[in-house]
Order: sequence, then structure tokens, then C-alpha cells
Amino acid sequence: MEDSAPPRGCSMFAWLVGASQVLGLASVVLTGVWMGHYRGGFAWDGSSYQFNLHPLCMVLGLVFLQGDAILVYRVFQNEAKRNVKMLHGIIHLLALIISIIGVVAVFDFHRAAKIPDMYSLHSWCGMATLVLFCVQWVMGLLFFLFPVASSWLRASYLSIHVFCGLVLVVMSIGSCLLGITEKLLFSIMPVYSLFAPEGVLANILGILLVSFGVLLCYMITREEYRRPPNPEEESLSVHFKTLTEGGSPTTP
Amino acid sequence: MEDSAPPRGCSMFAWLVGASQVLGLASVVLTGVWMGHYRGGFAWDGSSYQFNLHPLCMVLGLVFLQGDAILVYRVFQNEAKRNVKMLHGIIHLLALIISIIGVVAVFDFHRAAKIPDMYSLHSWCGMATLVLFCVQWVMGLLFFLFPVASSWLRASYLSIHVFCGLVLVVMSIGSCLLGITEKLLFSIMPVYSLFAPEGVLANILGILLVSFGVLLCYMITREEYRRPPNPEEESLSVHFKTLTEGGSPTTP
Repeated sequence: MEDSAPPRGCSMFAWLVGASQVLGLASVVLTGVWMGHYRGGFAWDGSSYQFNLHPLCMVLGLVFLQGDAILVYRVFQNEAKRNVKMLHGIIHLLALIISIIGVVAVFDFHRAAKIPDMYSLHSWCGMATLVLFCVQWVMGLLFFLFPVASSWLRASYLSIHVFCGLVLVVMSIGSCLLGITEKLLFSIMPVYSLFAPEGVLANILGILLVSFGVLLCYMITREEYRRPPNPEEESLSVHFKTLTEGGSPTTP
Repeated sequence: MEDSAPPRGCSMFAWLVGASQVLGLASVVLTGVWMGHYRGGFAWDGSSYQFNLHPLCMVLGLVFLQGDAILVYRVFQNEAKRNVKMLHGIIHLLALIISIIGVVAVFDFHRAAKIPDMYSLHSWCGMATLVLFCVQWVMGLLFFLFPVASSWLRASYLSIHVFCGLVLVVMSIGSCLLGITEKLLFSIMPVYSLFAPEGVLANILGILLVSFGVLLCYMITREEYRRPPNPEEESLSVHFKTLTEGGSPTTP
């Protein structure tokens, strides 16, 4: 019965998920329009057209896909936990690959244009986010997909993993906002203060990203949207359990 | 007994509070050094020296004091809840006043220098944060200090109030980072990429602000650092209760 029962506050939750997807996709589309229409499009030749891939990859990978990877635990409440875990890990891996392509794009462009790397607050925050994202993904793999840690250790680490996941999404969005501001001031400083359409579009992109982040954090932190405990999950957890302790981690 | 017992995980919590205060105060001091030493100091004459008050007021009011106002519920676990509520409201009011002075400083400077207002992503995010902060403060006052709402309504609103408080601190920090990036690109763009000391100092300020935010969110969201339920608080809540319903809000 519990398996097929709709989650509590289901209708409101469905609206929130829908709204988050609209906001996330609109952010990706707006980034594409900004870089495609206002900044001349995309290429992989060390030119500024290669740079244009950077914002697109970061918004798609580090924000939208990372956010959705977190959301799968709330959305697929009636799926077997192992499948949801796999999906969570795979979307995160995809997000990581796209983000790394985005970072390579900008380093390549810097090298070709002889622009120094890693001097700005945007680059410091962005690189810290990406490195911590890699660490979080590897730790998640070791703790939850391959059972190298004991059940007790996994249960202890779970709340840290969830907290760090949300911090990483927020840091990703913050880094994107810094990138938007940097790009606008490098490209259109003389007309930015005249409310040039490109500036307004990029500002709206920033507001959409913030809204996506707020909605995501709300859905993840609300108790009523958590995956309810499920006896089937408990028995599944036992498959991953190492020899030392009893019990299994609680639901993320 | 419960009143005088130390909170769970007390020693670790004390270290975390200490670290957050070091990070917060270091952020305020670093902003003062940046504006005082590198940007020529402070004045209230419509000049760029008046602008310099803007970052200082926002970091002090919107980040440090707002963060500490939230933290009082976790730090003063053995104080009467009414006193802690008052302290929470008073520090927030102080934060609000200092933030408004900071905003007036920059609008005055813009008027004198004939710079348009509210065109940048920093200004959009910052103004949204300040307006929502005012709304949150008034709502907090009405719901929790003056009992205009029923107990049931207050209990329902409490989790929203706590969530919005954390969102506001994060948005404040994000707005500060955007302001740091804007100020650096307006002031030292030619030498920022050469790792000019002013740029490095401002980047470090950004990292300190992010660290303060992460630590604060960690302390507020950890279950073991929450104020434990207290029968005395329950009876105090009854004083604020309006006529309609029974029960009292849970602890923030």
C-alpha cells in the first residue's frame, strides 16, 4: 500500500517540480540565446566562440543537471531506491562531464588569447565548486554505490552528503551569477547602465537561476517531501552492508 | 535539569560558533581595510568616499549581523525564549538600519555622480534581498513578537520563516560577491588579472563570506544544535496565544 500511495502534499509538490523544471530549462535556453545571439555563437577553436560554450556548459551541467540529480530522490518516491541511486549518480556524472568540458573551453580560450587564469573571484568560487563537486561525487560513489564504508559510517555521512549537495548547488549558482556579472562588464560595460537588452537578458538569467536554487532547496529541505521510509529499501540496503555493523542509512 | 544541561554536541558547536564569528568579523575588517586603505576612506558627501560606506554597511548589516541574529537561537539555548526572541528581533532591526544606510549611501553617490540606478544584476539581487528582508522582519514581528496570528498559523509559518531567513543570508552573501566583482572590475580591471593586492584581498573577502555562510547554514540545519523543547517555553508561548486554537509553535 505504502509503495503505491501518493507522497504527502503531492499536488503542491508536482507544481513545485514543474516550476523548477521551467526555471531550470529557461535558464539553459536563455544562456544559449545570450551566447548564440548576442555573443556570436559557438565553436571549438580557441576563439571567443569557444568561450561561449563555458556559460552554457556550466548552467546546464553545474546548475540544471546537478539540481535535477538531487531532485530524483524526491520525484521518484515509488521507485526502488537502488535504481534512484543509480540515476542520481549517472545524472551527476553527466553534470560533471559537461562542467569539465565547460572549464576546458574557458582555459583553452584563455591560453589562445593570453589571458591569465584563476585571478578573479568568479574563477576562485567556480573552481572550488567544481573540485568539491568531484570530491562529493567520488565520496558518494564510495559510500553509497560501492559499499566500502560500514552501515554506521554511511548513515553518519548521509546528512553531510545531503548538506554538501545543497551547498554545491548554491555555490554553483553563485559562481554563475559572478560569471554573468564578469561577462557583462567585460563585454558591454559602456551600455550596461543604459539597460541594453543583452544586460537585461543576462540579469533575468541571474534571477531565474536564483529562483531555481530557492525552489530546489525548498523542496529538498521540506520534511513532507522526503522519501518515506520503506521496508523494501531497508532490505536493499542490506545488500550493500559490510560486515561490521547492523542498521542501514536513513533516506536522503 | 534540562534547562541547565549543556546542549548536545556542545564542544563542537562552540568551536563552530567561534569559527563563524572569526570569519564574520574578519569579513567586516577586510571590507574596512579594502575601502579604507585601497579606496581612500569614508565620508558622507556624495563622493566615492560615501560609496565606500556601502560595502562596509552591507557586509556588517546584511551578512554579519543578520547571520548572528539567526544564530542567537542556537547559542542561547538556556535563556528564556522570550528574551532570545527579543534579541533576535533587535539584532535584525540593527542589521536592517545599517543595511538601509548602506543603500542610501550608494543611491546618494549615484545621484551626485549621475550614474543610473538599478541596472546591474548586483543591484537587482541586492534590492530583492533588502525588500524581502524587510518583509521577513515585519512578518516575524507580527507572527512571533506581537501575537496577531493564531498559534496554528504561527506554527505553520515558523518553518517558512526559518527557511526564508537562511535564503536571505545566502542571497545577501551572493549579492556581496556580485558587488565585490563589480567594484573590482570598475576600479582595477587592467591590473586585476595581474593578481594586484587589492584584487587578491577582495577575492579573499569573498571566500570568507562564503565560508561564513556555509558554517552558519550548517549550524542552523543540524538537528543536534536545535534548541531542545522546553516546558517553560511552551507555557511562555501560551501568553502569546490568541483565542482560536490550542498548541504552540515548535522551536525555531
